[in-house]
Amino acid sequence: MAQEDIFKKLVAHCKEYGFVFQSSEIYDGLGAVYDYGQNGVELKNNIKKYWWDSMVLLHENVVGIDSAIFMHPTIWKASGHVDAFNDPLIDNKDSKKRYRADVLIEEQLAKYEEKMNKEVEKARKRFGDAFDEAQFRATNQRVLANQEKWDQLHTRFSNALNDSNLDELKQIIIDEEIACPISGSRNWTDVRQFNLMFSTDMGSTADGAQKIYLRPETAQGIFVNYLNVQKTGRMKIPFGIAQIGKAFRNEIVARQFIFRMREFEQMELQFFVKPGTELDWFEKWKETRIKWHRALGFGDDNYRFHEHEKLAHYANAAVDVEFKFPFGFKEVEGIHSRTDFDLSQHQQYSGKKIQYYDPELGESYVPFVVETSIGVDRMFLQVISASYCEEEVGTASGEKDTRVVLKLPPVLAPVKMAVMPLVKKDGLPEKAREIIDELKFDFNCQYDEKDSIGKRYRRQDAIGTPFCVTVDHQSLEDQTVTIRYRDTMEQDRVPIADLKGIIGSQVSYKQLFAKLN
Amino acid sequence: MAQEDIFKKLVAHCKEYGFVFQSSEIYDGLGAVYDYGQNGVELKNNIKKYWWDSMVLLHENVVGIDSAIFMHPTIWKASGHVDAFNDPLIDNKDSKKRYRADVLIEEQLAKYEEKMNKEVEKARKRFGDAFDEAQFRATNQRVLANQEKWDQLHTRFSNALNDSNLDELKQIIIDEEIACPISGSRNWTDVRQFNLMFSTDMGSTADGAQKIYLRPETAQGIFVNYLNVQKTGRMKIPFGIAQIGKAFRNEIVARQFIFRMREFEQMELQFFVKPGTELDWFEKWKETRIKWHRALGFGDDNYRFHEHEKLAHYANAAVDVEFKFPFGFKEVEGIHSRTDFDLSQHQQYSGKKIQYYDPELGESYVPFVVETSIGVDRMFLQVISASYCEEEVGTASGEKDTRVVLKLPPVLAPVKMAVMPLVKKDGLPEKAREIIDELKFDFNCQYDEKDSIGKRYRRQDAIGTPFCVTVDHQSLEDQTVTIRYRDTMEQDRVPIADLKGIIGSQVSYKQLFAKLN
Repeated sequence: MAQEDIFKKLVAHCKEYGFVFQSSEIYDGLGAVYDYGQNGVELKNNIKKYWWDSMVLLHENVVGIDSAIFMHPTIWKASGHVDAFNDPLIDNKDSKKRYRADVLIEEQLAKYEEKMNKEVEKARKRFGDAFDEAQFRATNQRVLANQEKWDQLHTRFSNALNDSNLDELKQIIIDEEIACPISGSRNWTDVRQFNLMFSTDMGSTADGAQKIYLRPETAQGIFVNYLNVQKTGRMKIPFGIAQIGKAFRNEIVARQFIFRMREFEQMELQFFVKPGTELDWFEKWKETRIKWHRALGFGDDNYRFHEHEKLAHYANAAVDVEFKFPFGFKEVEGIHSRTDFDLSQHQQYSGKKIQYYDPELGESYVPFVVETSIGVDRMFLQVISASYCEEEVGTASGEKDTRVVLKLPPVLAPVKMAVMPLVKKDGLPEKAREIIDELKFDFNCQYDEKDSIGKRYRRQDAIGTPFCVTVDHQSLEDQTVTIRYRDTMEQDRVPIADLKGIIGSQVSYKQLFAKLN
Repeated sequence: MAQEDIFKKLVAHCKEYGFVFQSSEIYDGLGAVYDYGQNGVELKNNIKKYWWDSMVLLHENVVGIDSAIFMHPTIWKASGHVDAFNDPLIDNKDSKKRYRADVLIEEQLAKYEEKMNKEVEKARKRFGDAFDEAQFRATNQRVLANQEKWDQLHTRFSNALNDSNLDELKQIIIDEEIACPISGSRNWTDVRQFNLMFSTDMGSTADGAQKIYLRPETAQGIFVNYLNVQKTGRMKIPFGIAQIGKAFRNEIVARQFIFRMREFEQMELQFFVKPGTELDWFEKWKETRIKWHRALGFGDDNYRFHEHEKLAHYANAAVDVEFKFPFGFKEVEGIHSRTDFDLSQHQQYSGKKIQYYDPELGESYVPFVVETSIGVDRMFLQVISASYCEEEVGTASGEKDTRVVLKLPPVLAPVKMAVMPLVKKDGLPEKAREIIDELKFDFNCQYDEKDSIGKRYRRQDAIGTPFCVTVDHQSLEDQTVTIRYRDTMEQDRVPIADLKGIIGSQVSYKQLFAKLN
């Protein structure tokens, strides 16, 4: 099945089984905003717990905070977001549609690539096994002509972006004769910078309310609390501050389901180190974070590092952890050596001294920062797309059937154990509930009595429940039940008293944490 | 010590020990917004877990969701917030300061009360034990004159509020000769309604972005997801949907630390029932919720119910759970029978049928809703003010000393166990860390080696750590340690191997949940 079909199925599955709903769906939705349903919220909370505990419980020198979404507006001046957190936008005067100028040009580049690829594929068909693609690309006139156009455009485009030259971006669009896909016209406005921060007015003084922003990242909430945490927590460098929280970006081109949303959640660690040691710590956190991802067991080959060629103005090293989504390798986490940029800026803008007195050196300095930043929602999408399987299975009558199963790591599964009475009578429902009452404080249990056992198994497979327990008449006699394992579909008969041990050990975070050391 | 002094100390303590910081403090703060520090975030997360698990794990028919802060703007039209979620504001033309008109009038009422109280106190001093306050109030001319003014103003004010008569509110302010506390002038503008919702612009179409609101309550996120959750979760009425999340209100008069903030967090349950059964469920949830509060052990007398005399337009029963804060009994939770108001409104505004087919009745209806709504931050303030103690204690040298201790329920404490090597040598630090490494996945541990043991105990008392473990030379020989209990300050010598059992049972949520059944 094509990867994009799998992705469509995944989105449909997320809705059908209560993982992710479109926001405000009964009002025909709100663009690029989503809600988490009854199973989604549990999966999301489990992902957050895995991250939080692996940061805060596992590291003696990492503590958490929870700073507000509303912050003093000067913070975003200091961080550079007021001046530079922009997208270049252009309007088509006929369709009244607005576009990102850079995206229009990227699409033009893709068109040249497509033309080249078409020539290559035509030739491949013609020549068969004898086809030498590299040689063909180096000699074919049509490919070479398109390659030249691509090269010229790419250079011009890169220069315009580097210089933030908006006039040049517009000139490129005109020169390349790029038309609006809606109106078909080339009647464009000038390119303008559009800031991606949402703003609102706080308070209501007669002489004007204060314009504030919804934070576009959680990192600054950590930086402005650096002094308070360091002092009241008596922290010694190196140490880290971890935070999970919402952030907001007014994306013009939001897409791919929960991959890029306007309201999203981040899990960020800012780790404060002695200047000069930051690149060692950068390497150490790279290793720690890739281990965290791989511990989930989705296959080491599905992850790769992507080193940034061009660094942001505040960074002296940066790498993405990429995961193989159904739509290709994409970033799930960024690890950045942010230097002392942020703390120095806040020192300057606030007029407060933001330094650390190092008792070993006998001197004070502005700490350097290594950041690990991961999107909760993107991690959610990663987990669910890596877990989604369609499998052919045999049925009792010997026919072939398909099951959809979410092979979630048990520790992340929304429901750990489903308990099912074989029939809705003879005291079996009561026995099933008795088992749940005994175990419900240990892990999330679900009672399910409707439809055949086979249908109930499929339903639990679809939400990723690792263990199904069936209560039958024998259970009343000898206190045993059938336990059925999600991935193998094998079944065992076990004493009720053993359930806590069997399931508890499999769904415990400890098992995961052990892989991180 | 006066209650307001205790409150001031509490606020200072929250900052000094990393519980609550003023937001953006290095930029001189942001009004009525606060950040949670390294200990605050743990306490807050523990409160949220206590609520979430007691709702979702304890009740087979309650599931969670996590809906976005951004919602379709028509939702707030349907809920009544666009038209009616207002405060009446008035500006003084000389000082340019803005006030809540209703608060100015309430302060005037308080002035009349104050005058009466002064007369009463004067007379009490004059007459001593023989003083009969009731008789004095019924006969003294000065008291009676003020009482009459109070009565007239109160009636006029109530009528103006009931009729939303803004002109009358202004006329009252003029007639009562209320002056601006800053300019001293009575030069007032008209009274205008000010909506308490924060708004922002989403998207950037050429023909205008969409104006949306930051949700002022989480409840509507549940209502608009009712259909999706009920269907995909195969829920049968009665059932509930629980949610924890941020909400925002542009309060003009925000005060009392984290009691009333502009950005705050709610924990809400909306419980859907058959029409006609809602008042029984209302009583049942009242009982369930008060049990939840009392299980924390802060004293049953510190809670009371406050029945609403005047009901909101959507309610047919409403009660507050009030707790005795240092500044008096105040609401921490509201329980409301919201009828079918919200679902019916959304049905009308969205055009979608929002009904439940009841298989027993054989018919469909719009469910009725019973809501329990509690503020996380207010609950945090409740827990910390109920836990804060200053105690006289003896010292080794026989002198009297004072300790500040947070007698937090162990399950809510940010740190469960502090491990302290008696000295920083002889392998004691290594042994202490070995103990932490063994237990850090079971509960939150802290290593502390600085200062005398006594000082370290005080530090842990101040953040509410229920157990301190000291590692000494004997520990290396016989694998025992000293465990010191926060509240009694008593110490026992116990085997290291027993720590998990001793502490684990005390800090487990199960113990609390057992009290809820």
